[in-house]
Amino acid sequence: MQLKLSLNTATVKKQWTLAQAIDGCARHEIRGISPWRDQVAAMGLKQAAQSIRDNGLTVTGLCRGGFFTAENWRDDNLRAIEEAATLGAQCLVLVVGGLLPASKDISLAREKIHDAIAEILPEARKAGVPLAIEPLHPMQAAERACINTLEQALDICDALGEGIGVAVDVYHVWWDPKLEQQVKRAGKKRILAYHLCDWLVPTRDLLNDRGMMGDGVIDLPKIRGWVEGAGYTGFDEVEIFSELDWWKRDADEVLKTCKERHLRCT
Amino acid sequence: MQLKLSLNTATVKKQWTLAQAIDGCARHEIRGISPWRDQVAAMGLKQAAQSIRDNGLTVTGLCRGGFFTAENWRDDNLRAIEEAATLGAQCLVLVVGGLLPASKDISLAREKIHDAIAEILPEARKAGVPLAIEPLHPMQAAERACINTLEQALDICDALGEGIGVAVDVYHVWWDPKLEQQVKRAGKKRILAYHLCDWLVPTRDLLNDRGMMGDGVIDLPKIRGWVEGAGYTGFDEVEIFSELDWWKRDADEVLKTCKERHLRCT
Repeated sequence: MQLKLSLNTATVKKQWTLAQAIDGCARHEIRGISPWRDQVAAMGLKQAAQSIRDNGLTVTGLCRGGFFTAENWRDDNLRAIEEAATLGAQCLVLVVGGLLPASKDISLAREKIHDAIAEILPEARKAGVPLAIEPLHPMQAAERACINTLEQALDICDALGEGIGVAVDVYHVWWDPKLEQQVKRAGKKRILAYHLCDWLVPTRDLLNDRGMMGDGVIDLPKIRGWVEGAGYTGFDEVEIFSELDWWKRDADEVLKTCKERHLRCT
Repeated sequence: MQLKLSLNTATVKKQWTLAQAIDGCARHEIRGISPWRDQVAAMGLKQAAQSIRDNGLTVTGLCRGGFFTAENWRDDNLRAIEEAATLGAQCLVLVVGGLLPASKDISLAREKIHDAIAEILPEARKAGVPLAIEPLHPMQAAERACINTLEQALDICDALGEGIGVAVDVYHVWWDPKLEQQVKRAGKKRILAYHLCDWLVPTRDLLNDRGMMGDGVIDLPKIRGWVEGAGYTGFDEVEIFSELDWWKRDADEVLKTCKERHLRCT
């Protein structure tokens, strides 16, 4: 299978605006892009959509909807769906949110998240925007997402039906003893995005110390085998949050390295 | 039910030797203790056992056996079983170990761990020392333990039979969507220890930034309800690794706080 690389713009967000990232992808012959909404807003939605189209890039996802445990979740997610439709994004990635304000009740947060997704899903279907639940690593359960395993995400997908699936990010799921089984369960229908980076040893920060593919301990070829075995034929999206390393480097060097490691290490 | 408190000596390891911790427990009327093997060795095994007996303390666990992916795992675990027997420990806690040296194959590490536990279990049974697998938080999978959920640990228990169970530490399992179900599955027979602390928001370090009960976001009364509902009647063992806070405080203040929070927040 031909490897198709997409750049999640968070990977160079400290160095480049979205306009620069689009140019960078074109220059480095990276054919996919996954922008963040704050960058899209800064560039202007229409201009961003136009520039991405003009450069022939596939929008492998829009980051992000979700945070259903925050106050303004409904309006914010409806806007996100519209933006994803305008950009022609293959999915809207949902980082679902952590605990409710001043609450320790993770079950309640999970119920709230389930109900909120159910509420926006008809709008997403109308707009032709698949929703991709991204299970986040359990270390981010309190603050960012209390959907933490692929199994849990797929249970929600099964309950809600069409128009919803998962974003499988190796960083969040590599440790899961049920990963192979649940990737198989997800299948072609539910795997809407596949995100790459690596788990560094040691990891110095719970949020922004992700590694470049090949620099950590995740068995990327094995997980790719499972994901492809399940029928996924989409892009591989590189998403590296790296305060201490990659955000400090020249962005062209980062893209070159992403391309090289994608071919050699995944 | 009467709350029974045990002090895992890691909670004051920067301030106190084991001898001082034993005295401290006696002074603060904490009736259980769970020492670490390096501290036992420093005090002398026989003297430690004698002093713990003289003070009428229950040894709720010995920390720790495991690290089955390291070179000398067999001898080290056989020694740990002997020490646990000498101390009259209610269990030997197993921190099972992470990836094998220079390997990214987490499945292989898990097989190795399964086989190693199977190999030492007959010796543990002979010595009358129950083995307690402690599933560790997924963020510690690479370096410390690639048994990361209660479900995974209980699958191993079911495969291996008598003389083995789990240590349920709220810090490692609080996020797990299957926690209630798996605590129930474990039941009185498999829950050999119950460990308390709290998950701080934000968490600043992946290993040594645990919180005092009540200072974080874990719903401790709810988890206690599940554990007691499963039939557990043992001690509540406080285990707080806290480089930035509790290890810097006066140890008597730490013990006083543990007692007060145990009553009020768990």
